[in-house]
Amino acid sequence: MCRWIAYSGTPVLLSQVLFQPEHSLIDQSLHSRMGVETTNGDGFGIGWYPEDTEMADPAVLRDVGPAWNDRNLQEVAHTRSGLFFGHIRASTGSAVQHSNCHPFRSGRWMWMHNGMISEFRRVRRDLALAVDPALYADIEGSTDSEVMFFLALTFGLPEDPPGAVARMAGFVETTAQSHGTRHPLQMTVAVTDGERVWAFRYSSEGRSRSLYVSTKVDALRALHPDVSFLRELSDETRLVVSEPLGDLPGRSYGVVQPGGGVLHRFRPEYPEGTGARG
Amino acid sequence: MCRWIAYSGTPVLLSQVLFQPEHSLIDQSLHSRMGVETTNGDGFGIGWYPEDTEMADPAVLRDVGPAWNDRNLQEVAHTRSGLFFGHIRASTGSAVQHSNCHPFRSGRWMWMHNGMISEFRRVRRDLALAVDPALYADIEGSTDSEVMFFLALTFGLPEDPPGAVARMAGFVETTAQSHGTRHPLQMTVAVTDGERVWAFRYSSEGRSRSLYVSTKVDALRALHPDVSFLRELSDETRLVVSEPLGDLPGRSYGVVQPGGGVLHRFRPEYPEGTGARG
Amino acid sequence: MCRWIAYSGTPVLLSQVLFQPEHSLIDQSLHSRMGVETTNGDGFGIGWYPEDTEMADPAVLRDVGPAWNDRNLQEVAHTRSGLFFGHIRASTGSAVQHSNCHPFRSGRWMWMHNGMISEFRRVRRDLALAVDPALYADIEGSTDSEVMFFLALTFGLPEDPPGAVARMAGFVETTAQSHGTRHPLQMTVAVTDGERVWAFRYSSEGRSRSLYVSTKVDALRALHPDVSFLRELSDETRLVVSEPLGDLPGRSYGVVQPGGGVLHRFRPEYPEGTGARG
Amino acid sequence: MCRWIAYSGTPVLLSQVLFQPEHSLIDQSLHSRMGVETTNGDGFGIGWYPEDTEMADPAVLRDVGPAWNDRNLQEVAHTRSGLFFGHIRASTGSAVQHSNCHPFRSGRWMWMHNGMISEFRRVRRDLALAVDPALYADIEGSTDSEVMFFLALTFGLPEDPPGAVARMAGFVETTAQSHGTRHPLQMTVAVTDGERVWAFRYSSEGRSRSLYVSTKVDALRALHPDVSFLRELSDETRLVVSEPLGDLPGRSYGVVQPGGGVLHRFRPEYPEGTGARG
Repeated sequence: MCRWIAYSGTPVLLSQVLFQPEHSLIDQSLHSRMGVETTNGDGFGIGWYPEDTEMADPAVLRDVGPAWNDRNLQEVAHTRSGLFFGHIRASTGSAVQHSNCHPFRSGRWMWMHNGMISEFRRVRRDLALAVDPALYADIEGSTDSEVMFFLALTFGLPEDPPGAVARMAGFVETTAQSHGTRHPLQMTVAVTDGERVWAFRYSSEGRSRSLYVSTKVDALRALHPDVSFLRELSDETRLVVSEPLGDLPGRSYGVVQPGGGVLHRFRPEYPEGTGARG
Repeated sequence: MCRWIAYSGTPVLLSQVLFQPEHSLIDQSLHSRMGVETTNGDGFGIGWYPEDTEMADPAVLRDVGPAWNDRNLQEVAHTRSGLFFGHIRASTGSAVQHSNCHPFRSGRWMWMHNGMISEFRRVRRDLALAVDPALYADIEGSTDSEVMFFLALTFGLPEDPPGAVARMAGFVETTAQSHGTRHPLQMTVAVTDGERVWAFRYSSEGRSRSLYVSTKVDALRALHPDVSFLRELSDETRLVVSEPLGDLPGRSYGVVQPGGGVLHRFRPEYPEGTGARG
Repeated sequence: MCRWIAYSGTPVLLSQVLFQPEHSLIDQSLHSRMGVETTNGDGFGIGWYPEDTEMADPAVLRDVGPAWNDRNLQEVAHTRSGLFFGHIRASTGSAVQHSNCHPFRSGRWMWMHNGMISEFRRVRRDLALAVDPALYADIEGSTDSEVMFFLALTFGLPEDPPGAVARMAGFVETTAQSHGTRHPLQMTVAVTDGERVWAFRYSSEGRSRSLYVSTKVDALRALHPDVSFLRELSDETRLVVSEPLGDLPGRSYGVVQPGGGVLHRFRPEYPEGTGARG
Repeated sequence: MCRWIAYSGTPVLLSQVLFQPEHSLIDQSLHSRMGVETTNGDGFGIGWYPEDTEMADPAVLRDVGPAWNDRNLQEVAHTRSGLFFGHIRASTGSAVQHSNCHPFRSGRWMWMHNGMISEFRRVRRDLALAVDPALYADIEGSTDSEVMFFLALTFGLPEDPPGAVARMAGFVETTAQSHGTRHPLQMTVAVTDGERVWAFRYSSEGRSRSLYVSTKVDALRALHPDVSFLRELSDETRLVVSEPLGDLPGRSYGVVQPGGGVLHRFRPEYPEGTGARG
């Protein structure tokens, strides 16, 4: 049960978003130290598309300790980027190791996840076997989140992100239900190709984790009048967080892209011939 | 602001004390994840006197991540010992690194601390200069806790533990007050030579951190009727914790030794010619 | 390409075997720092059966840094045991993470490996699919070594260790050859159930890594006349190392058990209906 | 006994200098794995002045494992900078911890060191006491290298780098000789304020570690005709390394700055009233 933030818009220093706002991602981990909520101390990661290089792929910094005391994170946050992800992890059982930290990367794609597949051990093998054999050897860790990413890649993520995520969710539900898990999936997922960000939230049970897509930077400015850097951002800038700040419908997804963001209803797509329903 | 536990008595597996009781040290770190209290996720350490070796010095396992997810800690806790320390750390500013984790060791002596010297940076140099020059080069970290240990060693810890700790506390107060810090010291300290355990609590301001010296194992059995291993312990077994479980007087110290434990009033000893008072 | 040591016999402190001998495992890593040979700095692990506990399963300490500078390893080596493994890792490509460090454990069984499956990425999926589905979810890392262990478990390790390892080797060769890898397997493997130790060496190409099974403790005493603790060992004590000290036949395995050790010829067992040959 | 590289010139990706050249810093650590020379596996660090930020201070990434297997280093090396340091560490005794890794930083200044103060434990206290009391509390680690940096800061580094380093070297020699260490100092040091880089080499005994100041980028191009990025560099670009590539006089220092680099003779400055000589 983790938390994440996705930023897209006017290039800023990562530190301005990750550390400076009163309710920043790292601040949330600090607040949780004060007893307000669950500690996310089982690793962290940031991924960003470097400005001013020819590299299309994102760079990713991950480590296994808490974000709140990591000095390398504070240093690297002095990087400027117009599209980046940040994630803090609370393990639901799998090992605390580098390869289990988000965001995950494949080529120019990045993926991060908050949530879980209930009773994942039961279905881990069946889900892994459905991954494209050409991709299987790239799985490095042992999390449900990474397998979900590889399933989405298998089901056509580069061509049709919403469709691929819908097919992933449908396949996870069908598989888990065949193993007797009734409401297997809770997720808020963010995925990007370096140009657009797709954000999804969904729960098999109908009780979704919160997802906040800021449709206008005006809203952010109104929420954080004290955060001066917000005033310098273009109107297209968006911040998406896996946090209970908003009041979106429970099953939804958003796209953030140059020109603005839109919100859609999310439905899993089930494999043909199955009667599974979320 | 850390927490610690000291065990002395019938040899047991460390895991029985560190992991199994409902309110074990690690359990406290787990509970804190649930939002009950401050997270102690900035490192941990255990120190024990190995049974069945000729070694008089304690072995110490320390690491910089949270105790709750550390697999090596769980493994090494399958060690049996009749005297051991456990500590979980919440940094008050100094680096999260191996040499800043407790317990600290010098020969057969171990030391651990919960609390702080307020505005430590102001007095760090003066305190370090007072350390016996023959010991100075053994300081490896940057915490107030380690310097307090080296001051106690300098002031005669092996010969007179209560006196050495009193002189250390008095010196810290005098030094800090000369730099304008009015109530500089809060501490619960445990120190051992492998045979006896001394536990101290003291606050310059008169508001001490809690310290619980279980004067009888009966009390523990009554507190934890569900913990079966307590029934197998000798009556001399003691558990001392830096936790608000007891109602001891605010400035006190205890000694745990074969034959039983006793409790005394603690007073700092100030350097001659100073008017400092706690 | 790693190195390992297996000890079985009179209970000793781990440090006596791991650190004190002139050509100890850690000493080999130190020598390699001096330029004599390949550095094994990509993690390490030790596994031991604790004396004086009811626990039948081994305890395992692993970490991702070099063994030569790890303080926790030095501390925990003050443990006494009559059967333990030690391993230092040099990654051949897979991630440097806790779950990729040896020894691996399943219940009371431990496994460690020096060598590699050539072009492992090509066969990783096929090998993983052959693992017993009930065990698949326990795979935590991404190494060939761990998959080899799980295949041996799948093929009957607890009932027939030499047979299970032979079937594992045969299956790996058959699978890899079907993907076009001609000489896929090099291995020296040690495996134990806490009572006996089996050690195997094999190479598809017929050029085996060295494996030294000390059939008599006399031989060790003669090799290391300076190592005083060897004089205190029972005649049944054995030390097996993955090092070029001996002149055993290239395809062989040994069993070390109370009463002495024996050496056999090792042949892979190929799946029926395949023409594969090592 | 470490190694380092300092780059000043046309902004490049750190990876182009740290990873790509055939004899890059990381390549040296890889070669050392092949047995050519001493392993530098006890930590690493890079420091760079971020482009395109208002921040005058350098960012620093450091970690305690080997550079050759560190994934975060590979990721962060996709940063572009016109002035950066890289360092790989081989501990001569002090702890392997974050705060002992180079480069060290104070404000906009960075410092890195290859070499050692012989018998450092004897003089550690005397050297630390000579550090400006206002700076003492910023010492975080336990190395000779960090104390040398703080002494140079104390002796006027910002105003007069060559003079401050000379006074530091003289003070170290005088102090160590008063403790009976005849030839205490070996060093190759690089220090920068973000605009210029000063590089020093000196040995009390007259046998200096090598230091190569590339006075012309032409020389580099000639040495590495295969490294294409060298062709894109301005003529002012310089690379300074702590390696035996050159044939400079044994006691020397160089300055690299916009406009070119110059080389001088280095002499320690001894405290008045002492007869110490290097």
